[in-house]
Amino acid sequence: MPRPRSEHARRSVLAAMRRAIAEGAFESLSIEGLAADAGVAKQTIYRWWPNKAAILGEAMLDGEIPGNPPALAVTADLAADLHAWFDAVGSYQLREENLALARALIAVTAADPALGAALNERFAGPVLDWIVRRIDLARTAGEVRADADAAAIADQFLAMASYAALLGRPLGPERVESIVSGVLWGIAAR
Amino acid sequence: MPRPRSEHARRSVLAAMRRAIAEGAFESLSIEGLAADAGVAKQTIYRWWPNKAAILGEAMLDGEIPGNPPALAVTADLAADLHAWFDAVGSYQLREENLALARALIAVTAADPALGAALNERFAGPVLDWIVRRIDLARTAGEVRADADAAAIADQFLAMASYAALLGRPLGPERVESIVSGVLWGIAAR
Repeated sequence: MPRPRSEHARRSVLAAMRRAIAEGAFESLSIEGLAADAGVAKQTIYRWWPNKAAILGEAMLDGEIPGNPPALAVTADLAADLHAWFDAVGSYQLREENLALARALIAVTAADPALGAALNERFAGPVLDWIVRRIDLARTAGEVRADADAAAIADQFLAMASYAALLGRPLGPERVESIVSGVLWGIAAR
Repeated sequence: MPRPRSEHARRSVLAAMRRAIAEGAFESLSIEGLAADAGVAKQTIYRWWPNKAAILGEAMLDGEIPGNPPALAVTADLAADLHAWFDAVGSYQLREENLALARALIAVTAADPALGAALNERFAGPVLDWIVRRIDLARTAGEVRADADAAAIADQFLAMASYAALLGRPLGPERVESIVSGVLWGIAAR
């Protein structure tokens, strides 16, 4: 990606992209509209970024994260916590605008490995850590087998959320129940 | 995507793309090289497709599938069969050229939902069917619980293979062992 020559213009474009995301307007956003909002020439944007998804990727890395990604809560019930997370992801992906965002982030991750790794670190990283910590907590409480591979399970959950977004098929309650109960059955202490 | 005006030229471009894939040359393929091999003008390609991944997607749908995707075998041992499939996927993704192909297919799936659905049907569909049939077979043999959700498990496996390609982190033997034993433990008849 050619580096922008003006840091000020670059920041204006990324800020305009974040505003569009916060307003739920990523999908309908045109390069023309983005340029007008950022106060730069359309050609400037075409010169610096190959497409809208690449601008999105950079905007999501740089500065605050717009939107409302699902939050994580810890109760005394491991199954309930995992259900709550999956349900939140499913509801989030049901909104067409959120699904479009998620797919655009997958597209830019697939097309640009370095940017993709940075995006994954920033977005998937905290969720991964949360799932691992939550399973470790259950292990300490004696609910989960000592040799359960928390990192593998966390990766599995993120893979399913990502795949659901990629295919535009948000996980419904039945599928979530099947996944969570299957995994918990597999790692339960007995 | 604007429709090509010459079916002959379109087929030439797609055939040239399939030749490049079969030769393991997708990653290094340029639009110039593709145009030269197909005997069409570079501008023709730029007019009809937004990028290389879009040509790939169309080429993979149209005509024979080039390359050697992992084959599926059924033995008397469910765990061995699932291990063998995951190991084959892992080895396939370890070749940089195959990983680039897989990532390009993910990129085009994320960017173009309709083309993505068709690609998923063609490539993931048979694998999904195989996993479901293999688990049903084990159920009939009394190895798997009557209420095990074979479709959910198959989807889980494909999600993990796809996510590994997306992040450029092919699944190693340890992770495969952890996934397969976890899932089988979860669905085992007892």
